[in-house]
Amino acid sequence: MSAQPLVGLEVVECSTFVAGPSCGMTLAQLGADVVRVDLPGGGSDFGRWPLSATGESLYWTNLNKGKRSVAIDYRTPAGRELLTAFTTRTGDHRGVYVDNVVGRHRLRHDDLAALRSDMITVHVEGFADGRPAVDYTVNASIGIATMTGPDFLDTPVNHVLPAWDLLTGMHAAVGVLASLERRRTTGEGSAINVALYDVAVSAVGALGWFAEAEEAGADRPRHGNHVFGSFGTDFATSDGSRIMVVALTEGQWDALCDVTGTRDVFAALEKALDLDLRQESARYEVRETIASILRPWFIARDLTALRPLLDQARVLWAPYLSVVEAAASARASSDPVLHDVDQPGVGPMPTTVSPLRWAQTERKPALTPRLGADTGPVLAESLGLTDADLGRLAADGVIALTS
Amino acid sequence: MSAQPLVGLEVVECSTFVAGPSCGMTLAQLGADVVRVDLPGGGSDFGRWPLSATGESLYWTNLNKGKRSVAIDYRTPAGRELLTAFTTRTGDHRGVYVDNVVGRHRLRHDDLAALRSDMITVHVEGFADGRPAVDYTVNASIGIATMTGPDFLDTPVNHVLPAWDLLTGMHAAVGVLASLERRRTTGEGSAINVALYDVAVSAVGALGWFAEAEEAGADRPRHGNHVFGSFGTDFATSDGSRIMVVALTEGQWDALCDVTGTRDVFAALEKALDLDLRQESARYEVRETIASILRPWFIARDLTALRPLLDQARVLWAPYLSVVEAAASARASSDPVLHDVDQPGVGPMPTTVSPLRWAQTERKPALTPRLGADTGPVLAESLGLTDADLGRLAADGVIALTS
Repeated sequence: MSAQPLVGLEVVECSTFVAGPSCGMTLAQLGADVVRVDLPGGGSDFGRWPLSATGESLYWTNLNKGKRSVAIDYRTPAGRELLTAFTTRTGDHRGVYVDNVVGRHRLRHDDLAALRSDMITVHVEGFADGRPAVDYTVNASIGIATMTGPDFLDTPVNHVLPAWDLLTGMHAAVGVLASLERRRTTGEGSAINVALYDVAVSAVGALGWFAEAEEAGADRPRHGNHVFGSFGTDFATSDGSRIMVVALTEGQWDALCDVTGTRDVFAALEKALDLDLRQESARYEVRETIASILRPWFIARDLTALRPLLDQARVLWAPYLSVVEAAASARASSDPVLHDVDQPGVGPMPTTVSPLRWAQTERKPALTPRLGADTGPVLAESLGLTDADLGRLAADGVIALTS
Repeated sequence: MSAQPLVGLEVVECSTFVAGPSCGMTLAQLGADVVRVDLPGGGSDFGRWPLSATGESLYWTNLNKGKRSVAIDYRTPAGRELLTAFTTRTGDHRGVYVDNVVGRHRLRHDDLAALRSDMITVHVEGFADGRPAVDYTVNASIGIATMTGPDFLDTPVNHVLPAWDLLTGMHAAVGVLASLERRRTTGEGSAINVALYDVAVSAVGALGWFAEAEEAGADRPRHGNHVFGSFGTDFATSDGSRIMVVALTEGQWDALCDVTGTRDVFAALEKALDLDLRQESARYEVRETIASILRPWFIARDLTALRPLLDQARVLWAPYLSVVEAAASARASSDPVLHDVDQPGVGPMPTTVSPLRWAQTERKPALTPRLGADTGPVLAESLGLTDADLGRLAADGVIALTS
């Protein structure tokens, strides 16, 4: 077994909510030593829903797994001094600081760089000009909510997945690692800012949607659960389930026609409408017709009967699952990402490891520290503070040794 | 001005659709030299919608910006040999290969590692056991579609943003960069697999949703456009616009009460219901009541009147925009990610740069190569092929020099 790829790297994370913490979590899952810094008693996300039966935030717990927890009141001069000293201490694998600026800058790059010239900082923010924004407002700003949902709706549909937060966290992780690459090559540090809004603009741009809308001078109409530019939609089954069926490639389209016995119908349709349904754009154009021809076959069968038929025919499909069902399915999957742990403060809890599977490297599920559990050891180890120092700082409210 | 952080890094990308290409694009936007390898005439995503008026895929064009394009028929022995030689050539900043296995493996890690022991490969796949899956089927499998959309719906709502594809691309980029870090430290190569499904499981797990659903033994009910665990929802305005308004923090809640003149109403409500609305969980519990108290204030004003009122009061909000409006807004934003270029084959086109803003480093928009435009130069440069060699390979259909 090889060691995790980022063993040795030390990151200080002073962030809240999803983006910054998911950056730290991603690095921790690859072996980095990530010290999460919170205010004593926890920051604004420490009690965020969902909660466990024991009253712990399952959100905070799951975003901070595999990190160490240090509680410092960085709003006080003494707290800032401690955090600054800890963040800028010497070592090739140190000097990496990630925070978010929803409230305010925790530590500023220039202050850190004055003490350590090769400092790497990543600040996560809402807009590039410093105005606040969160996933829900960015999603409204970017045009996607008006494209989502059934075509009979005329109101926007918010996504539930905080996709912009999660993508921003991944960009922040890429920023950290690319900065390390640059530091090794040039000796230079890096000051990076990344705005949630910019992440959304970049993603929508990458899909060609801005180019499409501006060239057409109009928005793509809402089209419910249909896949744009190809064939894919949902079907009801006789037992009240729903499944998603997709035919992006010619092979997937053939499989779908074969299993549903609709080859002749579609051949006749192609002739009548002068279409070539082997082209995915043609399938998209007549998506409603294709769906209505296929619907009776699906609704006549239940999920148990459909499963082997569709799998054997190599149709690309999936049943819609609830989150409870999805958890069970994830647990049963090959080389699972979902594991069961006994999480202090929570009890038995499903948790997840990195989705990156490294040959010869084991992915072990990590527990989440209790808030402040590592304050003493981390400050003793890294800054040489004695028990007396720690006791005094705790008495002054500058640090908290446990939550 | 400093150089881009990944200048010098060379990556060979042999992938299609979104995940693999967005990994390569992310690295290219940070300065890496990414050679995208396609089949002569283009792979299965080369004609994917949306299309430009000139018939080019705006999707392919926008996902491949800043790369070089090489067309090799890697299905032929001669083509595989060329691609293998190119991918494994010596150099500290080389030996990085990204592909996707929706169809099949292009090149296998073991074959590459036999020629170059520190080879880094990242394979993007559907499920970890090799079964195919795409963003739309993964989204059905993970439980989110049944949570999305208005609460009067009883059918799943697909997201429009291919969030799993985009997140998988970012994980792949993290995998590449973490592998480089490990290669520098240990001299070892890396063989990484990353499945779309595993990315989704990991993300939903990180939010605590599996833990929540399993502890409750039930799914979170659909709640339309409300933000879970806090207060946030959409409001109609007198001009037919809709806006998203969020109050996650106590300050944002105060701002919302102040600007709408509802402080006394909510104080009375707190007393009547024995609630403390400074707690976000309390705001979530009575979200419908809060929304109905606020609704008349919003519907009595138009967007033009609301904008300064909400901004001055520091309410966290955003109007819902269409994609056309979102493009205009992105173009006008501070230090914009969206730029206008004259894209060969397309014409004037909005394009995007990396959302990571590096101090002292300029982000220049990059054009997309025409398919196969770099086949000749890249193979001549890297493998020493002569014009005669290239001509022969092109005549044999092993490579294409232009599209």
